[in-house]
Amino acid sequence: MVKSLITTDDISIESILYKAANIEHYGSSPSLSGKILTNLFYEPSTRTSSSFAAAMLRLGGQVISINDVNYSSVSKGENLEDTIRTMSSYSDAIVLRSKESGHAAKAAAVSDVPVINAGDGNGEHPTQTLLDLYTIWKHFGRIDDLRITFVGDIENGRTIHSLDKATPNCVKNYRDTFSTDDWPESDVYYLTRVQRERGSIGTYQLTAEHVRAMPDQSIILHPFPRNEELPTWFDTDPRAKYFEQMKNGLFVRMAILESVIKL
Amino acid sequence: MVKSLITTDDISIESILYKAANIEHYGSSPSLSGKILTNLFYEPSTRTSSSFAAAMLRLGGQVISINDVNYSSVSKGENLEDTIRTMSSYSDAIVLRSKESGHAAKAAAVSDVPVINAGDGNGEHPTQTLLDLYTIWKHFGRIDDLRITFVGDIENGRTIHSLDKATPNCVKNYRDTFSTDDWPESDVYYLTRVQRERGSIGTYQLTAEHVRAMPDQSIILHPFPRNEELPTWFDTDPRAKYFEQMKNGLFVRMAILESVIKL
Amino acid sequence: MVKSLITTDDISIESILYKAANIEHYGSSPSLSGKILTNLFYEPSTRTSSSFAAAMLRLGGQVISINDVNYSSVSKGENLEDTIRTMSSYSDAIVLRSKESGHAAKAAAVSDVPVINAGDGNGEHPTQTLLDLYTIWKHFGRIDDLRITFVGDIENGRTIHSLDKATPNCVKNYRDTFSTDDWPESDVYYLTRVQRERGSIGTYQLTAEHVRAMPDQSIILHPFPRNEELPTWFDTDPRAKYFEQMKNGLFVRMAILESVIKL
Repeated sequence: MVKSLITTDDISIESILYKAANIEHYGSSPSLSGKILTNLFYEPSTRTSSSFAAAMLRLGGQVISINDVNYSSVSKGENLEDTIRTMSSYSDAIVLRSKESGHAAKAAAVSDVPVINAGDGNGEHPTQTLLDLYTIWKHFGRIDDLRITFVGDIENGRTIHSLDKATPNCVKNYRDTFSTDDWPESDVYYLTRVQRERGSIGTYQLTAEHVRAMPDQSIILHPFPRNEELPTWFDTDPRAKYFEQMKNGLFVRMAILESVIKL
Repeated sequence: MVKSLITTDDISIESILYKAANIEHYGSSPSLSGKILTNLFYEPSTRTSSSFAAAMLRLGGQVISINDVNYSSVSKGENLEDTIRTMSSYSDAIVLRSKESGHAAKAAAVSDVPVINAGDGNGEHPTQTLLDLYTIWKHFGRIDDLRITFVGDIENGRTIHSLDKATPNCVKNYRDTFSTDDWPESDVYYLTRVQRERGSIGTYQLTAEHVRAMPDQSIILHPFPRNEELPTWFDTDPRAKYFEQMKNGLFVRMAILESVIKL
Repeated sequence: MVKSLITTDDISIESILYKAANIEHYGSSPSLSGKILTNLFYEPSTRTSSSFAAAMLRLGGQVISINDVNYSSVSKGENLEDTIRTMSSYSDAIVLRSKESGHAAKAAAVSDVPVINAGDGNGEHPTQTLLDLYTIWKHFGRIDDLRITFVGDIENGRTIHSLDKATPNCVKNYRDTFSTDDWPESDVYYLTRVQRERGSIGTYQLTAEHVRAMPDQSIILHPFPRNEELPTWFDTDPRAKYFEQMKNGLFVRMAILESVIKL
């Protein structure tokens, strides 16, 4: 039975966290030598694509990158299932970024090899969630009993949906704009940019006043890229954990690839 | 003397069939370790490009992919010969998809390394033909004395031209539209899509009536991508061999790369 | 301290020339096995990108290619520094082609890994200069006390600026159009194309008369791609060194990668 990763329910979060920590602290071996990963992106996301590519290469594997299927001949009116069948004939796993919620599950249903959901429209983005959780876990030693404030594009934020779902034992707040009067005390502030390409409007920005109201042990996370909401002057604050979060993406995706690809 | 593959006449078909069968049944060794293949595509064909990339990687080699030369600086008004000279300085073989018939031969004439024709305009597509022949050979045990019906875009179908030429000892029929009254008894039905991007018009579709008229031992092949001409309800019929044909592409291209690249 | 290559002042030219000669004559070992190079190109340059990719692969390393950042999600309004931080989290060196002079230095300032300038707007292009110098050095045995005539787009020619600066002990002439009356006796004729994409106008072409006036021991170099300024009938003249110059690019870039990437 092929083991795909469509939502965080498909995998043991705890085992990924431990595996990632192990890779971060003790390094990796070329365990996926001889294996090929296909990056199949129906919308471009160089950041996510590059992160998976680096993870696969660090494990000794190889990568075929298809970074904008719409402009490629894979499409030529072809249905998703045929494209997946094709790429699953050539490779040992497929990382899929698709434009519509549910497409990752549809792909997994016809694939001979594991499909890893790298974001399906307004659906989920489980590998981002796992790296968010890893960053929280490293800082607080737990992923339960924390206060999390989600700030930004609540409705269209795929990364917000996924992290929200994966932290059922946390207390959550949601802010789609924020005044300094309405800035809850929290352990984690999870900022996202306004997804203009998904039709969102609105604007907000972290200010010195917000920062003063943040507890000392709290952290700010952001899935990046960022726009004006997260000004660069905050980067040197010890509570800015988004660069570390970015680096964690590599360890977590290595752990995921090792768990999912059949040795 | 550099050994390019411009038409199927440039290679021993029999030796490729045996080599591919050997790879399929006994696996491969990293015989092309340290070698670099350039995929140089003047029109996008992610399917063909990915298939060659996977074949090269499976043999331990590496790949540089240039998937749309028109938008890349390689072009900047540069002639084909200079581009080929450049890439042949950097790599050990070039897979070339070009827009005009004859360009593959032109490229081979100035290249220091083997050129593999991956389709030149309305010209030929020999590696597709070799994988078609491999699929036929595996099923019937021979590639001679068979009845082949070509269905679809006879005029613009590069894959039809190449396979037709490579099967001189078979009986051929050609249908560019098909009514159920006019559906010949055949061993191989080779369907292709209407190449709208090459200016073709017309439409046709396989129906239950056609299928009832097909002999039990016959097979349907299709070079993919498919459109409406080949409905998905036929996929589970044992005579549907196009997914196997797709998989065979990998073995055949591995055999070709091993034959052409100087060890 | 990370060692970036932004201008030729950042590296010992002599040590690169010797290292490249060593690689050309004795071959290379997979010294960069396990290392990852990111090709980050804000304007497409398949030639330069492929040359670095080939150099990295020949040394046993791996490559992540981002060939048009503008159309990729890395940008999405993101500043250069964040993109560099991201890619420096994933890889061991970054080759950067940028559109504005000074961007390479800006990138190096925030990167955890070496940045190699592969051309920054009208600024510099040090790796091209090093391969030009290597070609001159191989032919004349020195890079000093030579007469160099630069022909073409003097104002916008990044490769001209960089080579000019790196040869302080040579006698230089500059011609942006050339009549046969005004064709200086020289050791090196360095031709470039008119950079129409940078707003340059003008046209010129090497003629039989120019060629007759060239000393027997002189050479013509050209960074390619070429247009009409360098007609193909000259290609077989023994003074045409531009194809060799192209091949030298691989050895020189291998030498640079080996010098810059931390083992």
